[in-house]
Amino acid sequence: MDYTAMVGYRVEALDTPALTIELDILERNIARLQSCLTGLGIASRPHVKTHKIPAIAHMQLRAGAMGITCQKLGEAEVMADAGIGDIFIPMNIVGDVKLARLVALARRVRLSVCSDNAEVAAGLSRAAVAAGVTVGVLVECDTGQGRCGVQTPDAAVTLAQEIARMPGLAFRGLATFPTSPAASAFLTEAAAKLATAGLPAEVVSGGGTAAVFGLHELPGFTEHRAGQYVFNDRNLLALQEVTVADCSLRVRATVISRPVPDRAVLDAGSKTLTSNPGHGLIGFGLLLEYPEAVLARLTEEHGIVDLRACTRRPRIGEQVTIVPNHASVVVNMFDVAFGVRDGRVETIWPVLARGMIR
Amino acid sequence: MDYTAMVGYRVEALDTPALTIELDILERNIARLQSCLTGLGIASRPHVKTHKIPAIAHMQLRAGAMGITCQKLGEAEVMADAGIGDIFIPMNIVGDVKLARLVALARRVRLSVCSDNAEVAAGLSRAAVAAGVTVGVLVECDTGQGRCGVQTPDAAVTLAQEIARMPGLAFRGLATFPTSPAASAFLTEAAAKLATAGLPAEVVSGGGTAAVFGLHELPGFTEHRAGQYVFNDRNLLALQEVTVADCSLRVRATVISRPVPDRAVLDAGSKTLTSNPGHGLIGFGLLLEYPEAVLARLTEEHGIVDLRACTRRPRIGEQVTIVPNHASVVVNMFDVAFGVRDGRVETIWPVLARGMIR
Repeated sequence: MDYTAMVGYRVEALDTPALTIELDILERNIARLQSCLTGLGIASRPHVKTHKIPAIAHMQLRAGAMGITCQKLGEAEVMADAGIGDIFIPMNIVGDVKLARLVALARRVRLSVCSDNAEVAAGLSRAAVAAGVTVGVLVECDTGQGRCGVQTPDAAVTLAQEIARMPGLAFRGLATFPTSPAASAFLTEAAAKLATAGLPAEVVSGGGTAAVFGLHELPGFTEHRAGQYVFNDRNLLALQEVTVADCSLRVRATVISRPVPDRAVLDAGSKTLTSNPGHGLIGFGLLLEYPEAVLARLTEEHGIVDLRACTRRPRIGEQVTIVPNHASVVVNMFDVAFGVRDGRVETIWPVLARGMIR
Repeated sequence: MDYTAMVGYRVEALDTPALTIELDILERNIARLQSCLTGLGIASRPHVKTHKIPAIAHMQLRAGAMGITCQKLGEAEVMADAGIGDIFIPMNIVGDVKLARLVALARRVRLSVCSDNAEVAAGLSRAAVAAGVTVGVLVECDTGQGRCGVQTPDAAVTLAQEIARMPGLAFRGLATFPTSPAASAFLTEAAAKLATAGLPAEVVSGGGTAAVFGLHELPGFTEHRAGQYVFNDRNLLALQEVTVADCSLRVRATVISRPVPDRAVLDAGSKTLTSNPGHGLIGFGLLLEYPEAVLARLTEEHGIVDLRACTRRPRIGEQVTIVPNHASVVVNMFDVAFGVRDGRVETIWPVLARGMIR
């Protein structure tokens, strides 16, 4: 479909489900986060997994970000193709195919990755040496998330020393997710021990949009990776640090059935909104026109809305606007996003890094 | 990436996460379902939302299916482009853009849709008349699912009569999901009343893979729409009607971290496996090599595996094979599926209807 023909369309004229981005809000969110981090003296390296759109990454860089974060090599390749030159992938890169892609990418951009153990670092080193490139490496620290990462500051120092000895690698610092009081304490201790060991951490990288609100009280970080802030979502609304007026990402859907008075059915199900339950949220999205409604249940292509709490109720054919639970995973379900201002489509962005799970 | 170059590759050589389909199992599943429905004298109209791959739809038709089912117009357009000529979309089609697409499709294929109310049917009629086409319509009946559908057999008859009077529409029968004892009773009563009213239902269409196991005890259906049976998944394993040997769909992932003895981390998260919890399942997939492991938690690009119950434990760099909770939603996360026989890639299928949510 030739989406470019839709520039100038009213949003109501878009076929549904449609992913729209309110450009005024997007621009404000990008400016505000950058201003906040600049004020704290912390570098911004936004995580593009949330939007997967090179044009938005370039907006973030123009606002002052010093580089971007990608979660997968495939995302990074798309962003490099779009001219972005400084990329951090906070992930253990493992396996021959991935390492070949990694060193090819390292020829094109300033590249850093994470490692949480010597075996992964040794693989990076062998590939980098064979290709004649240098790959930056940060030690990933598990500061409470229970995912990847070394478990103690001492283990971080030991691994950093091993990495520093490996050819083809440049030890760059420490990384964790999310930024928290425990993360601050862990990384401050590790950074001090690294300095004592003569191996100072150039970068101490934290992350998370929710963490930004308390970042002024958390010492020790030089860099922050925020993702969701460009859009905000129901998870962030629940923290009461942002309002609906800060939510730039919406899914437009159509009411296709009103089988009983208390139920509406939308043409957007789990293949659109995902089954992501959010953090303790009720329902799968907020209907802006019917905030009392509960998007209670999703099947693959249907959204079942409980209208019991609603005085006004939608008619068949009506469009509704949904703020999703978790922006990052919903964007990934769409091939195209419509940038909207004053109710009209201003720009059309292919979600170029959608599905880049490799 | 030129995936065709990978024909003949061992599956272990594929970059991960990778979606593989065991062709021997796929072929057996298709033959077995068709044989079962033929034995019952029920027409097969498989639901292609599960695989979204035209080549598999053609396998189903060659096995004896009389047409296919699609859940969205976009899926149907892809399947029509692939030469499939008989398509049922059990969905209320609403809105000008969708109706224009619908009548364009009706020029190319024998097309039926659902309606659960007169307003939706009137929209179909106006569009069909304006385009000079005929659209087949089945009355959707809510027989317990609580999604779309008329609520009583009498309401089904009333709507059928309205549809039969509308120009451009051909009343074809009744549809529901899933097939169940309640569905059988509802549709049998509605069909009898339609016959009495002089408007016999040509088609009484039920659906669901799980329902097939009890279909011999449920009278009243002329047609069945099964989807998951081509692959099977953890939801179906839990019913104990199929075994792992019947599960043709697998996600290959790599162990990228072993941060503590009881934890492995995979390079497959919710953007690969989805957050779909399945029907009362624990974890997000079954690891065939480590069946005692629990794929306990997913972040966007990481799968966190609890190894506490495992005696053997995976090493970093090892690939694992995952049977997902719900096949339909996982296939939709991939652009490409690898058809595998005897451990080697035999065919590469783009998931052409992936993301066709409109």
